[in-house]
Amino acid sequence: MAVYTTVDDAALAEFLTAYDVGTVLSFAGIAEGVENSNYLLRTDQAHYILTLYEKRTDAADLPFFIEVMEVLANSGLNCPLPVPARDGSILQELAGRPCAIFSFLDGTWSRFPNREKCAELGRTLATMHLNCAPVTRRRPNALGPDAWQPLFDSVGDGADVLGTGMTRQIQERLDSILADWPRDLPSGVIHADLFPNNVLFINDKLTGVIDFYFACDDLFAYDLAICLNSWCFEPDGSFNLTKSRAMLRAYQSVRPLSDAEISAIPTLAAGSAMRFFLTRLYDWINTPDDALVSPKDPMEYWAILRFHQSVSGTAAYGIGI
Amino acid sequence: MAVYTTVDDAALAEFLTAYDVGTVLSFAGIAEGVENSNYLLRTDQAHYILTLYEKRTDAADLPFFIEVMEVLANSGLNCPLPVPARDGSILQELAGRPCAIFSFLDGTWSRFPNREKCAELGRTLATMHLNCAPVTRRRPNALGPDAWQPLFDSVGDGADVLGTGMTRQIQERLDSILADWPRDLPSGVIHADLFPNNVLFINDKLTGVIDFYFACDDLFAYDLAICLNSWCFEPDGSFNLTKSRAMLRAYQSVRPLSDAEISAIPTLAAGSAMRFFLTRLYDWINTPDDALVSPKDPMEYWAILRFHQSVSGTAAYGIGI
Repeated sequence: MAVYTTVDDAALAEFLTAYDVGTVLSFAGIAEGVENSNYLLRTDQAHYILTLYEKRTDAADLPFFIEVMEVLANSGLNCPLPVPARDGSILQELAGRPCAIFSFLDGTWSRFPNREKCAELGRTLATMHLNCAPVTRRRPNALGPDAWQPLFDSVGDGADVLGTGMTRQIQERLDSILADWPRDLPSGVIHADLFPNNVLFINDKLTGVIDFYFACDDLFAYDLAICLNSWCFEPDGSFNLTKSRAMLRAYQSVRPLSDAEISAIPTLAAGSAMRFFLTRLYDWINTPDDALVSPKDPMEYWAILRFHQSVSGTAAYGIGI
Repeated sequence: MAVYTTVDDAALAEFLTAYDVGTVLSFAGIAEGVENSNYLLRTDQAHYILTLYEKRTDAADLPFFIEVMEVLANSGLNCPLPVPARDGSILQELAGRPCAIFSFLDGTWSRFPNREKCAELGRTLATMHLNCAPVTRRRPNALGPDAWQPLFDSVGDGADVLGTGMTRQIQERLDSILADWPRDLPSGVIHADLFPNNVLFINDKLTGVIDFYFACDDLFAYDLAICLNSWCFEPDGSFNLTKSRAMLRAYQSVRPLSDAEISAIPTLAAGSAMRFFLTRLYDWINTPDDALVSPKDPMEYWAILRFHQSVSGTAAYGIGI
């Protein structure tokens, strides 16, 4: 849960004089998102989300994120549309933080998405990849493969709290992933954090994709691998091939994967698992005990990583070349 | 902020099969309230609040709170109306917690309410006192004057963390309040926690009174004293007589105060300050460092207490006999 910055009624009223959003009917901090403070703002005109960017989001990256959302929303994709102030600007300041107002998207997220939802996600992800083409700004992936060794080095031998010999095992698996990493696959703007809590549904219809604050330029198939990891493993850690096949087929119905992309799936999925394992490991070691947000267990992603390094071919994902 | 219990989409869908509230459009934990978990539930029919009662709320008290809200909402007062399940029951269970659904009230709360809002509050408070007459259940005030000495005893000499000699000073002021405490003033159901964050406005019009989880049977004028303390002191600690007068006059336009009630205001207001000072002191000493909710500074209420024990008559509140 997260509302790091408090906005009182007087500050809100003063802030909203710069906008044409109508009369405020309700305003409540919501317990979603871990990086920024989010408020649900309802006026007599519409529902909005007011996001205050906290220090973990680099203000210099905000124009990129805003552009991605504008391009996607204007292309018809269900993602938040930035709402400009009267002077046309998107980024404002409130309570000492950069902030912006966005359209509100209906829907609820699903902790364990079913096969139909996995297919919806696959179609939407491919559409996002294609529709982001007009984005002009660039943002390298700060958490891409080049970042993993430095990130791992920064925790020293801290990984050994997870089990004897873990530091050595992680290094071996990381070396293997980096040695196999594909460098010349189709790339463009990716979401890079499309976990189920960032995708909204009403029944099985996808109604919203949110939280673009890890978006960057990287391999399209890597974005898909992040989704395979976060959508297709069951609560007991088992991999659901039916869901994986549904997601991959739906993706390909919009943007067919090349043979090189398909062949790279096990490595990309292992790399995605390594990325989330390492950031969780970092947070596990560095989160103060009194933090508002509890760190997630890195070992969930260690098991996923081992799965991908044990498969004998892409048939394990329900796809062939 | 507070969302102690997580409700996922599958649990929510299963839970809502017992209700006729329509199709869920959005569902978000909100960072309001410190005792319970609150979710904003929007369906194609209406907005609702889903409250899960956490362990600080005694389940045995819930029927009383629910009855108060039902009686008030049905009398036309802007307070949450409990929404029954198809079988007619209000209290249900979700994620192992007692819970209930309520109508959602528009409006935002005001950190420093102006004179017009203080008058609105006065009128509404008097209306609440009159309209609660049909409530049949009873609930003694667990934090009334009889509770203050035991509460103070439970912190031992812990108050000395606030300053040398504080334990002695508190005891002297508590003795003085209890010696003067009026026992035979008009009484009935009171809200007992009507701070500005529990009252919603659109512009200066009062649109909602919420959070009835301290409601109990006690002196009506004590409820008014709680409001004088929480609405009429400025950020710098000064007492705003104009706001106090507006609140008292508006209250009396609906339910005139007796001479005995007016005379008792300084003692009732000092007692109210003592009650919030003592509970904040208790939380200050007993809240673990890693708690989700930071304890409030008790010294704010010590200054308010000293103000009331220094006034020379009810004219200080803008009211005479």
